[in-house]
Amino acid sequence: MKAPDKIRVKRVPKRGVYDKETIYRILDTDYTCTVSFMHRGVPVGIPTIYGRKGNTLYLHGAGTSRMMLELDKGIDICVTVFNVHALVLAKSAFHHSLNYESVVVFGKGKAIDADQKMDALKAVSDQILKGRWEESRLPNEKELKATTVIAIEIDEASAKIRTGPPSDDKADENLAIWSGIVPIEKQYMVPLPADDYSSANIADSVKVF
Amino acid sequence: MKAPDKIRVKRVPKRGVYDKETIYRILDTDYTCTVSFMHRGVPVGIPTIYGRKGNTLYLHGAGTSRMMLELDKGIDICVTVFNVHALVLAKSAFHHSLNYESVVVFGKGKAIDADQKMDALKAVSDQILKGRWEESRLPNEKELKATTVIAIEIDEASAKIRTGPPSDDKADENLAIWSGIVPIEKQYMVPLPADDYSSANIADSVKVF
Repeated sequence: MKAPDKIRVKRVPKRGVYDKETIYRILDTDYTCTVSFMHRGVPVGIPTIYGRKGNTLYLHGAGTSRMMLELDKGIDICVTVFNVHALVLAKSAFHHSLNYESVVVFGKGKAIDADQKMDALKAVSDQILKGRWEESRLPNEKELKATTVIAIEIDEASAKIRTGPPSDDKADENLAIWSGIVPIEKQYMVPLPADDYSSANIADSVKVF
Repeated sequence: MKAPDKIRVKRVPKRGVYDKETIYRILDTDYTCTVSFMHRGVPVGIPTIYGRKGNTLYLHGAGTSRMMLELDKGIDICVTVFNVHALVLAKSAFHHSLNYESVVVFGKGKAIDADQKMDALKAVSDQILKGRWEESRLPNEKELKATTVIAIEIDEASAKIRTGPPSDDKADENLAIWSGIVPIEKQYMVPLPADDYSSANIADSVKVF
């Protein structure tokens, strides 16, 4: 995985991070992404979910979906993950920012063979909620057939990270203006069961919430 | 704003929503997006923030940033917003889903004139935190000059929404498997002041957290 020539983080180099471990770590804190690709001559960015296994990202969808059909053609794909951790409120409007972690991945896609689908779908399920796959009624042959899984080998990737307090100009430091950060957390709330059975039998996978 | 021919929601039509009010409402629940465009022959999806004012989205960045230079060329741009509200855990792996709202916007960009920048930057600031702009030390001439603001007129847009409990197959309804949803909330935590002045003087804009 080399630093991408395409979109090397240029303007604020200190925020550009390229090592594989950091990129994998950020990818593993999330499961939602935007998948960008060309479709009928225009770029489109489609929100979806992914699973990572090694250097591969898996996307899935109905075999009839246009995105799946398109991604299987071996076209260039960009996968973007963006996690915001805080509002950064400086004294000057100019230095307002966010604390965040983001990853931009470049690669090409390919639909995987039928015999690999179970493992790949488990990777997507695990990405969202470990243990849930084992609790579920697993896909049958008809469902597997109706599902396309695209594997994207990560050819190039970059990460950006901002942390810490606001950075105001020296000249602004003594202005009588509140500055600081407002942390943001993604919180999972109490699970809501869908039926009587579920009301009485909480699953192990959702006990963590 | 017409329903986009490019990417009309096809597979699950009941999840496709096109009316302007819904699209504006979803855009206004967020301020982070992925901006997709072609750059040197490949699609890239860059995470950033936006402000909406009427039918216009504003993106901003350093005048020297490659994205700003590129977007000002009048190329096709796609802006994607994706908010996840719950994990949807069905009895079958196949029917697992997310509750979410997403918007995909298509348009072209144009750098706005210097005399419009203040209003546009205020729109971006307001999108994140109402009232903060008025508290801040506003941009000076040098800062305004160093900042490019791209206005994207919303040519086409579509929204997708999923709500409610899991939808399992009839045949699975009595399986002894927990099913339900796990709500997810983006929570703003207690603001952390950056200096002594800010410790003693909480700003009105952050009192809401």
